[in-house]
Amino acid sequence: MNLLTVGTVAFDDIETPLGKADKIVGGACTYISLAASYFEKNINLVSVIGDDFPQEMLDLLKSKGVNLDGLQIKEGEKSFFWAGKYHDDLNSRDTLDTQLNVLADFDPVLPDSYKDDPFVMLGNLTPDVQMKVIEQMTTKPKFIAMDTMNFWMDIALDRLKEVLKKIDCLIVNDEEARQLSGEHSLVKAADAIIKMGPRFLIIKKGEHGALLFYDGDIFFAPALPLAEVFDPTGAGDTFAGGFMGYLAQTGDTSFENMKRAVIFGSAMASFCVEKFGTERLQELTAVDIKNRVNKFVQLVNFDAKI
Amino acid sequence: MNLLTVGTVAFDDIETPLGKADKIVGGACTYISLAASYFEKNINLVSVIGDDFPQEMLDLLKSKGVNLDGLQIKEGEKSFFWAGKYHDDLNSRDTLDTQLNVLADFDPVLPDSYKDDPFVMLGNLTPDVQMKVIEQMTTKPKFIAMDTMNFWMDIALDRLKEVLKKIDCLIVNDEEARQLSGEHSLVKAADAIIKMGPRFLIIKKGEHGALLFYDGDIFFAPALPLAEVFDPTGAGDTFAGGFMGYLAQTGDTSFENMKRAVIFGSAMASFCVEKFGTERLQELTAVDIKNRVNKFVQLVNFDAKI
Repeated sequence: MNLLTVGTVAFDDIETPLGKADKIVGGACTYISLAASYFEKNINLVSVIGDDFPQEMLDLLKSKGVNLDGLQIKEGEKSFFWAGKYHDDLNSRDTLDTQLNVLADFDPVLPDSYKDDPFVMLGNLTPDVQMKVIEQMTTKPKFIAMDTMNFWMDIALDRLKEVLKKIDCLIVNDEEARQLSGEHSLVKAADAIIKMGPRFLIIKKGEHGALLFYDGDIFFAPALPLAEVFDPTGAGDTFAGGFMGYLAQTGDTSFENMKRAVIFGSAMASFCVEKFGTERLQELTAVDIKNRVNKFVQLVNFDAKI
Repeated sequence: MNLLTVGTVAFDDIETPLGKADKIVGGACTYISLAASYFEKNINLVSVIGDDFPQEMLDLLKSKGVNLDGLQIKEGEKSFFWAGKYHDDLNSRDTLDTQLNVLADFDPVLPDSYKDDPFVMLGNLTPDVQMKVIEQMTTKPKFIAMDTMNFWMDIALDRLKEVLKKIDCLIVNDEEARQLSGEHSLVKAADAIIKMGPRFLIIKKGEHGALLFYDGDIFFAPALPLAEVFDPTGAGDTFAGGFMGYLAQTGDTSFENMKRAVIFGSAMASFCVEKFGTERLQELTAVDIKNRVNKFVQLVNFDAKI
């Protein structure tokens, strides 16, 4: 079933302890769409870029089934740019530069053909833009998931809470869940956030895995222990893309299927960090993904004998 | 099969964000033995206390099948004492006071009846004391596990490395594994530590679960997400006690059974933090434990469909 993806398509400068990459293609919607494309073949992208974006990357997205009718290209303007440097433990990073460029006045416009997409993934953007996308849907989507960040909780909390009432699943990291709820315990944070609107909540804990909360139940997906992490950039968006791609492909939003989707999202994220930027996400095969998911099964599988 | 437990039996002052307890019974060997007693009925304890220790706690241990023939009671001396205060996140703590007392010149003496115990759990003590226990065994144990800490890596690394050559399983936390190996990645740290001697390595990550490494394979056990943690003191020792108690009870040291043992250890640790000190560990039933292990099964269980 069609998947609508919304978020940034952008350039990143990235420095990690293992290397440096300048002006490579990044952006939440790029990672989301690439990861989802391994599962769902009908992806409708909504974003904005300048006229500085490489055609070959657009061609690559198209070749993977990503429809770009909703991608605005602003002549004479520049794409969104972010530069960051990771600390030695790769768990934290400093933002060195942020240039909003075309993102400053982004007004998302959905082509008519997008307006009845049953699955919607709203990448991290201002709550206003996320709301504008939801409001353009003519058919109520089967499942809307969204990402957000601390920054919007600081400056646009009321609007963010309005959007939370419209969605089915919030995907945030542990610190974001704590800030949004005011609770340190993730169990209490989940209770508080689910009361704000979304039926499902996913809390990402980076190298410590992810928790899926639904109706008093909790599912835990580990992260794969890796010998080397090259670049964590985009891992969270890749998780969201794999998760939503799997849900859209199967069309099944039961809790049981959601668990599988979290594992597929985790598997995609484990690939993402193996190379810089989107590099690893461009070259995967179905067998790679199947083998990786099997590793997750092995990692937690035991015979309880009880 | 008999389980030999070695470590401190002591008093703790504990302050957490949820309360304060003064001079309550603690010590690694107390937690280890109590947790193990729910699985293995023949536990032989080796430790040292002063004449200030409450008889009712000794009676409780005996009532749970813990043999105290190896417990030295020093007349006119005081038991080991530790005071600590946890930070708000409960992940870190400050040591406010440490009084070695009887522990300063502890010379472990094994009763003859302990010397052929097939399972041995060496709680955190000086590597010298740990080695002295191993050297007194007349029959080579089937399985020796041990805990240690950063402090011994700082001041007695060579002796610690000698002990590591004699054991089957090291149980440490993530920071200890990193310091011992000099590697940040836990996968690389595990490779390095296993080369030092132990066939099995368990890396505890507190609220983020535990990893079991063996022969290139990894098993991950989650921690149970809890709404409230009252007191993390002794959780790591309780994990070790549950783990070794389960192994001793089953007498099976295969990797498959070791996985189950890690889950049982995690379940016992999840009880430990629910009340202050050893309180929760004194009152459990077999049904409590079975239900808790079931929660772990539910937490990670999914049908991969691949």
